[in-house]
Amino acid sequence: MTPESAFITALQALATHPAARGLADDCAVLEVGGETLILTHDMMVEGVHWLPAQDPADVAWKLLATNLSDLASKGAEPVGVLLGYTLAGDHARFIEGLGEALAHFGVPLLGGDTVRAPGPQSLGLTALGRATCRPVPSRSGARAGDDIWITGPVGRAMLGFEALSAGNTSADTSAYRRPVPRLAEGRALAPLVTAMMDVSDGLLLDARRMAEASAASFALDPAAIPLPAELPAERAREALAWGDDYELLFTLPSGTAPPCPAHRIGTVLPRGTAPLLLGDTPPEGPLGYEHR
Amino acid sequence: MTPESAFITALQALATHPAARGLADDCAVLEVGGETLILTHDMMVEGVHWLPAQDPADVAWKLLATNLSDLASKGAEPVGVLLGYTLAGDHARFIEGLGEALAHFGVPLLGGDTVRAPGPQSLGLTALGRATCRPVPSRSGARAGDDIWITGPVGRAMLGFEALSAGNTSADTSAYRRPVPRLAEGRALAPLVTAMMDVSDGLLLDARRMAEASAASFALDPAAIPLPAELPAERAREALAWGDDYELLFTLPSGTAPPCPAHRIGTVLPRGTAPLLLGDTPPEGPLGYEHR
Repeated sequence: MTPESAFITALQALATHPAARGLADDCAVLEVGGETLILTHDMMVEGVHWLPAQDPADVAWKLLATNLSDLASKGAEPVGVLLGYTLAGDHARFIEGLGEALAHFGVPLLGGDTVRAPGPQSLGLTALGRATCRPVPSRSGARAGDDIWITGPVGRAMLGFEALSAGNTSADTSAYRRPVPRLAEGRALAPLVTAMMDVSDGLLLDARRMAEASAASFALDPAAIPLPAELPAERAREALAWGDDYELLFTLPSGTAPPCPAHRIGTVLPRGTAPLLLGDTPPEGPLGYEHR
Repeated sequence: MTPESAFITALQALATHPAARGLADDCAVLEVGGETLILTHDMMVEGVHWLPAQDPADVAWKLLATNLSDLASKGAEPVGVLLGYTLAGDHARFIEGLGEALAHFGVPLLGGDTVRAPGPQSLGLTALGRATCRPVPSRSGARAGDDIWITGPVGRAMLGFEALSAGNTSADTSAYRRPVPRLAEGRALAPLVTAMMDVSDGLLLDARRMAEASAASFALDPAAIPLPAELPAERAREALAWGDDYELLFTLPSGTAPPCPAHRIGTVLPRGTAPLLLGDTPPEGPLGYEHR
């Protein structure tokens, strides 16, 4: 058991309120007044979640986008965010990027905290949303016979990260720097899906998590998984274990057509010995990033 | 202008939604579904907000308590919290202290994020509450003629910090290690006060902030400010600039008696040249901690 999973297991024992969903979902789902609130908090740390040389404006964008992606996976409409910021780096560029992202996604900044701290910069963001349909989708509703879908390709963020790391300024690195959460798609899909989550840690890892949560097996067809046109064929397997693309992974009853562009990439099976099959066999090697 | 105040000024320009209260209050106040939600997010960093040698159980307690103190200053009832945690230190003791604090205050853990990060440990907590009366108290409602009150002494956390730093194990350091937010007092006071905030950064600094927010002058009577019995008399001025006691500072119309134990420590005056008077003169020297 890794330190992270040991910590989360211990935390789960404290999170007994039904709104916490056992800390096993992307968000908390809380009934307040006549609304269903969707709550998420994600952190990003310099050198872990972004390259120290990256433009702070892009870091701010990504901090907001990744949290909104969690709301998207619940079909939620964003209501506002709170920012936790440690003073470091270029504040002016951070503010600029945050302002652009807030305006782009139409989300108000409601509050937060700013502290001085030594060491790598550490950022946190809490996003608050309002459910647009009930029940609110979870990871655990996939049923044998359902089709497995994804809203777009995986691997674009990987290529963007590599170009950025290599200092390749002619490449389009926006998929890594400025991901766009699938908010409209999430809202359109929420009333139809049996399960939904965003792909943040790698398609294979996240698909296995959804299969485990649903007590099912997910059989993915490798030939059906959308990949960027510019990805070399021999790197396809690698792209399946890279995260940061923030597409939505979801299941629909067989025969239901999604209301937005999406790719059918597999079928839910009754739980067999393996929670995940890629083609006919459980995938070997890394499935994704376990420690973010 | 310090880097922190420059950053906050820039952030305030983005926080135009009325729920943000211009980032000048302790919490955001958001109308959702017939309820008024109170939202706050505070960070704590190892070596800045706690001593590296401190028991992680106490750190967890304080992280929760300081956020709940912000809710107390709005008279809010806590609804739940989200935790941002970087993996470091003794997780088992952190979990233990967090569990004790959640149980003590009756607050559910709803979600959060755990990341690996190098450098000093950085923690964030978002607390969500429900207003128990409207309008929700702010810092800005004090009027000339009001009395200024505080729920308890200042300086106990300072003495606790010093004993802890000196390794004095026989001293009672709980005021510093395990502050108790004034939640019940906040709820009882909220319908009556003209302004309220919690004293986290030092009584003089926080009183000046409330005076500035209210466009008034606060005249404090140094002889009336409650201090711990064990505080040496010559250290009284120092205690007025130390934070971490988490008492509630509030103003009431002249003649109104508070519904909970409290000490009348001064009078609100029309705004004069100085926002804050201690006795007859503006206090010299540090008023509190500006950078937390």
